[in-house]
Amino acid sequence: MQSFNRIDVEDARILIAGATEKAREIGVPMCIAVVDESGNLVAFERMTGGKVTSITIAIDKAYTAAAAKKATHEYGEASQPGKPAYGINAAIGGRLMVVGGGLPLVVDGETVGGIGISSGTPDQDRSCAQAGIDAFLARHAKAN
Amino acid sequence: MQSFNRIDVEDARILIAGATEKAREIGVPMCIAVVDESGNLVAFERMTGGKVTSITIAIDKAYTAAAAKKATHEYGEASQPGKPAYGINAAIGGRLMVVGGGLPLVVDGETVGGIGISSGTPDQDRSCAQAGIDAFLARHAKAN
Amino acid sequence: MQSFNRIDVEDARILIAGATEKAREIGVPMCIAVVDESGNLVAFERMTGGKVTSITIAIDKAYTAAAAKKATHEYGEASQPGKPAYGINAAIGGRLMVVGGGLPLVVDGETVGGIGISSGTPDQDRSCAQAGIDAFLARHAKAN
Amino acid sequence: MQSFNRIDVEDARILIAGATEKAREIGVPMCIAVVDESGNLVAFERMTGGKVTSITIAIDKAYTAAAAKKATHEYGEASQPGKPAYGINAAIGGRLMVVGGGLPLVVDGETVGGIGISSGTPDQDRSCAQAGIDAFLARHAKAN
Repeated sequence: MQSFNRIDVEDARILIAGATEKAREIGVPMCIAVVDESGNLVAFERMTGGKVTSITIAIDKAYTAAAAKKATHEYGEASQPGKPAYGINAAIGGRLMVVGGGLPLVVDGETVGGIGISSGTPDQDRSCAQAGIDAFLARHAKAN
Repeated sequence: MQSFNRIDVEDARILIAGATEKAREIGVPMCIAVVDESGNLVAFERMTGGKVTSITIAIDKAYTAAAAKKATHEYGEASQPGKPAYGINAAIGGRLMVVGGGLPLVVDGETVGGIGISSGTPDQDRSCAQAGIDAFLARHAKAN
Repeated sequence: MQSFNRIDVEDARILIAGATEKAREIGVPMCIAVVDESGNLVAFERMTGGKVTSITIAIDKAYTAAAAKKATHEYGEASQPGKPAYGINAAIGGRLMVVGGGLPLVVDGETVGGIGISSGTPDQDRSCAQAGIDAFLARHAKAN
Repeated sequence: MQSFNRIDVEDARILIAGATEKAREIGVPMCIAVVDESGNLVAFERMTGGKVTSITIAIDKAYTAAAAKKATHEYGEASQPGKPAYGINAAIGGRLMVVGGGLPLVVDGETVGGIGISSGTPDQDRSCAQAGIDAFLARHAKAN
């Protein structure tokens, strides 16, 4: 038996609030997904104007980041032509996302969840995902 | 009618044990899948710390290697941009894996199964897959 | 943040060994899948003679039992024509199994995994699943 | 290692010819699929007038019959409301067929393939599947 930690829906709201604030600041309505450490959805919000195609993409970015314990943009680098993970973007029925915007949520060295953002450029998506992570970690640091 | 050979679950355990030993040696917990010569799963183990995304990826690497009678890293080379098999990584709903870590198990010139490994770098995955194959072939040589 | 427990691959082997022993006793080779508390595969074995169709069915029975925290035969009763859950067998792309043979593994009131068996009649599958659970709980009781 | 037998494409043509003859006799153009003992497609023919929806259905009936070593109409009986396998028709992404017209090909007690027919009524499909099986077994008896 293993013991582990995972985020709950209250935590997910903090991640979404942090990402939403950043999305408003840069003026890009986003789809925002938060998953637990196994990659299963905990919370999701599509801001008014967020893209319909981005619903699945955001969920799959969050899934990839949490379940593989790796930022999706890192997969982007590792899967360029000629690189070792080339071609992995089609794996798991296309759920393995290699486009930036998915980040694992790591607390005390343990992946406890993930966030995935989609609707802007990958850089915009990634900055909003980071804002969600930062909001959570700031709150978490204060609470401990 | 044709007569064939395929591995059974006892063989699969030997392959998994060989791969697990190598995974421990290099310190990377892996997902390890073994399939028969038709690509159907015979045995699977996710070591503690193996990635959730790697469950499907390991199974699909084993499937690709056995059913196509080809190591997945060979597909990686053949599917680079401009190469003849470019784009094949999305085939079969994304099951056709072109990332290293899937090896066919060939005995006396006949493919009798396959092994697929995922959670490390493709090179690490491939070395653990090879360790599984080597463990089986060593045992097989001794028995014959 | 919440703290949880889940089975690991050592536990999964105990479950599989218990189910395999029962399968041999009744003379029906089985597919045996063990998942963690989130429904993700930890270990799988197809005994020699286990059915190819049963690979997915065993995995999906284990997934359903663990992730829904409910034995699959209970869904069988609840999904009969005219009953509230009628039609749910097609949910999640057909992964929601309502045929007996999937059981959650509950330790101290907490679902920590699940086991799914397929290849025999649903009653045979269920008895082997129960044998796997019993083997684990006997070992667990002794260790604590 | 296990040794086993499976049909080849020459055998599949005999099965298809037998089923086609029966289909002409009853005046129903059919989709006819033949798979090997693992459920993988060996040959397929859609007679002129065979239904497009029946392509997948015939393939999945053959898959079910061979891979589960059981006629699909037997699943039909076992999966009626209140029966033990109720709900199994949606399993494996809906590939598990419980409608008549899929038969395993059993030679000397060993399942070596399967045939699946679709486009007519389930009874018509089943009679054509049986005609395919009979044609193969007659030829096989003569050859041995």
